[in-house]
Amino acid sequence: MAAQLSIDQSIAEQASAVGHEIYGLIERLYPICRSITGPGLRASIAMLREIVPLEVDEVPSSTQVFDWTVPPEWRISEAYVEDPGGKRIVDFSRSNLSVVSYSTPIDTVMSLDELRPHLHSLPERPDWIPFRTSYYTPNWGFCLPDRVLQSLSAGKYRVVIRSSLAPGSLTLAEHLHRGATPDEVLIFAHTCHPSLCNDNLSGVAVATYLARFLSERPTRYSYRFVFAPATIGSIAWLARHEAELSRIRYGLVLSLLGDAGPFHYKLTRKGDHEIDRALRHVLLTQQREAKVLPFSPWGYDERQFASPGINLPVGRLTRTPNGEFAQYHTSADDLGYVSPEALGESWLTCLRAMEALENNVRYLNLSPKGEPQLGRRGLYRSTGGYQNIPERQFALLWVLNQSDGQTSLLEIAERSGLSMHLLASAANDLERAGLLQAISDRATEQGGQDGDGATTPS
Amino acid sequence: MAAQLSIDQSIAEQASAVGHEIYGLIERLYPICRSITGPGLRASIAMLREIVPLEVDEVPSSTQVFDWTVPPEWRISEAYVEDPGGKRIVDFSRSNLSVVSYSTPIDTVMSLDELRPHLHSLPERPDWIPFRTSYYTPNWGFCLPDRVLQSLSAGKYRVVIRSSLAPGSLTLAEHLHRGATPDEVLIFAHTCHPSLCNDNLSGVAVATYLARFLSERPTRYSYRFVFAPATIGSIAWLARHEAELSRIRYGLVLSLLGDAGPFHYKLTRKGDHEIDRALRHVLLTQQREAKVLPFSPWGYDERQFASPGINLPVGRLTRTPNGEFAQYHTSADDLGYVSPEALGESWLTCLRAMEALENNVRYLNLSPKGEPQLGRRGLYRSTGGYQNIPERQFALLWVLNQSDGQTSLLEIAERSGLSMHLLASAANDLERAGLLQAISDRATEQGGQDGDGATTPS
Amino acid sequence: MAAQLSIDQSIAEQASAVGHEIYGLIERLYPICRSITGPGLRASIAMLREIVPLEVDEVPSSTQVFDWTVPPEWRISEAYVEDPGGKRIVDFSRSNLSVVSYSTPIDTVMSLDELRPHLHSLPERPDWIPFRTSYYTPNWGFCLPDRVLQSLSAGKYRVVIRSSLAPGSLTLAEHLHRGATPDEVLIFAHTCHPSLCNDNLSGVAVATYLARFLSERPTRYSYRFVFAPATIGSIAWLARHEAELSRIRYGLVLSLLGDAGPFHYKLTRKGDHEIDRALRHVLLTQQREAKVLPFSPWGYDERQFASPGINLPVGRLTRTPNGEFAQYHTSADDLGYVSPEALGESWLTCLRAMEALENNVRYLNLSPKGEPQLGRRGLYRSTGGYQNIPERQFALLWVLNQSDGQTSLLEIAERSGLSMHLLASAANDLERAGLLQAISDRATEQGGQDGDGATTPS
Repeated sequence: MAAQLSIDQSIAEQASAVGHEIYGLIERLYPICRSITGPGLRASIAMLREIVPLEVDEVPSSTQVFDWTVPPEWRISEAYVEDPGGKRIVDFSRSNLSVVSYSTPIDTVMSLDELRPHLHSLPERPDWIPFRTSYYTPNWGFCLPDRVLQSLSAGKYRVVIRSSLAPGSLTLAEHLHRGATPDEVLIFAHTCHPSLCNDNLSGVAVATYLARFLSERPTRYSYRFVFAPATIGSIAWLARHEAELSRIRYGLVLSLLGDAGPFHYKLTRKGDHEIDRALRHVLLTQQREAKVLPFSPWGYDERQFASPGINLPVGRLTRTPNGEFAQYHTSADDLGYVSPEALGESWLTCLRAMEALENNVRYLNLSPKGEPQLGRRGLYRSTGGYQNIPERQFALLWVLNQSDGQTSLLEIAERSGLSMHLLASAANDLERAGLLQAISDRATEQGGQDGDGATTPS
Repeated sequence: MAAQLSIDQSIAEQASAVGHEIYGLIERLYPICRSITGPGLRASIAMLREIVPLEVDEVPSSTQVFDWTVPPEWRISEAYVEDPGGKRIVDFSRSNLSVVSYSTPIDTVMSLDELRPHLHSLPERPDWIPFRTSYYTPNWGFCLPDRVLQSLSAGKYRVVIRSSLAPGSLTLAEHLHRGATPDEVLIFAHTCHPSLCNDNLSGVAVATYLARFLSERPTRYSYRFVFAPATIGSIAWLARHEAELSRIRYGLVLSLLGDAGPFHYKLTRKGDHEIDRALRHVLLTQQREAKVLPFSPWGYDERQFASPGINLPVGRLTRTPNGEFAQYHTSADDLGYVSPEALGESWLTCLRAMEALENNVRYLNLSPKGEPQLGRRGLYRSTGGYQNIPERQFALLWVLNQSDGQTSLLEIAERSGLSMHLLASAANDLERAGLLQAISDRATEQGGQDGDGATTPS
Repeated sequence: MAAQLSIDQSIAEQASAVGHEIYGLIERLYPICRSITGPGLRASIAMLREIVPLEVDEVPSSTQVFDWTVPPEWRISEAYVEDPGGKRIVDFSRSNLSVVSYSTPIDTVMSLDELRPHLHSLPERPDWIPFRTSYYTPNWGFCLPDRVLQSLSAGKYRVVIRSSLAPGSLTLAEHLHRGATPDEVLIFAHTCHPSLCNDNLSGVAVATYLARFLSERPTRYSYRFVFAPATIGSIAWLARHEAELSRIRYGLVLSLLGDAGPFHYKLTRKGDHEIDRALRHVLLTQQREAKVLPFSPWGYDERQFASPGINLPVGRLTRTPNGEFAQYHTSADDLGYVSPEALGESWLTCLRAMEALENNVRYLNLSPKGEPQLGRRGLYRSTGGYQNIPERQFALLWVLNQSDGQTSLLEIAERSGLSMHLLASAANDLERAGLLQAISDRATEQGGQDGDGATTPS
């Protein structure tokens, strides 16, 4: 058997400490003004690079990527609105959500009526600042608390945005953890949002610490972590790596992993892929409130991976999904909305999902006629007649009963309701006792010379 | 793309007016004494012919149709029972339900005890007259309110039925609306019941007005409307058109469409045919209380279409199904039990089902790598960051995401929960923008020279 | 058609009387001390042989059977514990549960502290004696009421077990009822438990009376009844008959059939085999509270039949399953816990399952275009128009509608919700009327010379 992750109790106990590290990274990233291009995005990637090695790809403005064109790079140094009395009622220096992302430069004076179409607020949350963008239609605007907007009186307003839209580049970054096989698991986190913690500093930071964890360990699969702006970033990354996409077995978009809500896994387009079944199993055996959501072509970058011409099975893991929490895309998605505990738990859950995928092997029972006598091999208690048997013995019996060389450990987990961790451990014991043999996927593990995906005992 | 029905808001607004026309037709048909043959049936067909052209086929008595023989034609001019005091306690001139359909002639005097086996009533509904038949076993009988039956006293009763059973013919009628393809949709309504409004003047009249509506419009499919007596009529029609049945793609039996109850669609024998999925989708997205019923070999003429030697996928649309309303097959199924509003809504629902079937096309996304940039084509709002997106944009994204050339619009409707009308409209916009191409079924639309049902971009 | 069981009302009425016979057999078997080998097991088989012929196979100790070795034969004549005052606080002569099964001999004096690890009780049921075994690890022990255990005081205890573990044999027994085809249905009951009535004298005795019932009747299938100790017995039987297992079409483990609880059917490993569907149908149409349980590799000998190298579809029928009643494996599973009524009902339920399996034939409708006219064949009432039709007419229509030569009667039962008994009777009427033809499985019924399982009208 190739090396496989095992997420045991000692790793589970690290989750809280790692959660604090993840939170610390978010604290450092939070003040930076990110967008789909620009120095803030670049500075953020540099910060991640202090934790794991990253390969950076700067995609020049005007590059054609599938149906899209990489936009000019946006830079902004200053922006504010002064009321007729000269008071700065909106100021980019106080919140980088204050300016509509990709706002064109302006420096003028106008009436409140002229200004109003450029002011965005949330009447139902009068103290929060919304997050708005205008990436592809040249425009400018400010976001501000509705309470401030309602207090404005008629008169002349000074409006200043010192920004530029000029040729530059869009910043992609990735980290590859090499496993025993070239088959890749893709982990994707969008990097473009400004000071919003859950969306998506949580996904970015959890992915970074997952990469760091794996870098110290042998794994069966290779893991490719991609950090890119939403939509244009994933499209650019796909366009520049189209020839290599066949290496990707499946993937996971990470986002919204810092709040206290239950986990939500969004299915891939087909909805019954190995990754769907693994995540469903891990979440539902771990947390009663966890939910599995149907696929929809709305959400994060899973949309791009699921487009018919790309067609990669990529699911999405979040806690409370977008659209179901009021703080989404507002200034209230701040450092108080995410917690080290939730982040640590999300990190551990991702590891458990990886453990399930890594251990999803088919085995062949080498003593398949009747049950083998486990007692004489020290795998079964010696006194009989009890009403119940321990869960560990159940795991041994399930693995033996189902291991016909066709049935994967994940299928056994689904049928038995037992955790992949327990079943993988039982399978290891049985393998050591000579009762079980892993079936390898020759095409993958032995170099693929057969090319037909035929499977044989390894 | 071949022409396809679009049932927009302006048509929905006609439903009430059309419902009144349908009700008006029922009012004219109601007094006629119909049976499975005879002048009443012929007169009813003549009335429909005032609204749409009909081809009439008179099948002679004694014609063998599959396992059955067309019976003699039944005519009746007068029938009554006089009590010992000479009072007419039952009189055909007051209700044509009063006589068991196909009663043999009689003119005699008998005791109440001799008469009683020939008297049918409903003890649990003492004021209603039941509907009874004896088509294939020569017999005679009367139907009367149980209150009248219970009041009869011993003595001699005069019993008169002036009827004849003689060679004649059984009347079939049909209307063909020609569409862009020779593939046919069958719409069937049974015509044999006497003064019963919901069963089945409602089905007959709704079908007639559907035919009239289509006659003014181009459609993708051809629509064949068949009006025939129940059981012997559908069997006779099948026997006389056996060679042409392969043109029928699927069909719908219409009945019980005038009451206030929710819609009920009864599945075809296989239960997962295109027509089953279309009706399920249309009904359940339109009306929360609508129900889909499993197939059973009991009910109306769907039984004959579903026989193993015919095997046509024909579903059935009703409102409250037979057997679930007390008025079924009684004098209480009268003009007060049906309403113009319900009839108009039924007509519109049938049109929506036709719209779903007509638009159930597979498309190919011509920009399939990642999402195409809808914004620059004017199909997407320019400011981003909002919590929700409009339903119309969802429809665009769903169609693009699923259009791999294999997935039909109906499948997209099922997955997305969006209406076929909205999705068809989104598909049209995308086709106009050059992002989508309809996949035609070559065998059907281009003459079938390939014969293998292969599909190619049209 | 080959002969098929029909379980009609007259047989149902025998259930109570047969239940008393079954209970009588249990009363005789109850006092015997059985184990997985030994004279008690042999004496029990002799008792069954008084009711049905049995072929007995004595498997010598040390015989290798798959991964197991037949253990030495255990015999025991006397066993007790005397307290410091000389009182026998445990005595094998009062209950043969008192000694751990397969206890090694001992005759010594020891302190209560030394003795205690060898004493088994049930603190939560202080008056009951548990059942414990140590078949494969040499050990000894006593089982006693916890109330007695708690009353013991310090001091020297006399401990005596006069037992032997010496070369002998393990006793297997079987009865074959030959049917019209060599295809076999396996009925298995484990025989090794001592004085426990529900587990499994109930299964043993019900199986015996099923065998006696069949011996007087022609059947389509052959029925093989196997009586063997649990685990080692079924493994030994499988090992000694491995070459003939392909004759077994499916099977049923019988156990726990004497209590008042609802029926529970445990699915085979695949879970959708013909026997699973038959049992599900019979149980759920007979008893609202009946349940179908998923497969698990824990329970009785279905585990061995379901091992991947044997892979026989063998389900399990019980009433309240093991682990769900407190009396399980205790002295409270006595003659008061089982009843003649429950046993008779279990016997009848097994017969109904056999009836369903025997009658699970595919038919071809010989008048498949439209419905045949049942009325002129006396199979349909002559007056029409009623709201409801009798269940018998439904059965005729269902069989005609579905009989395309591919659909089995069991599938028709599942779709219609009608009982196999009613459908089989309707099929017989239609066959007699020349409207239906049974499709035989040539490979099986005509000698198998084709070997391809092709089916043709017989």
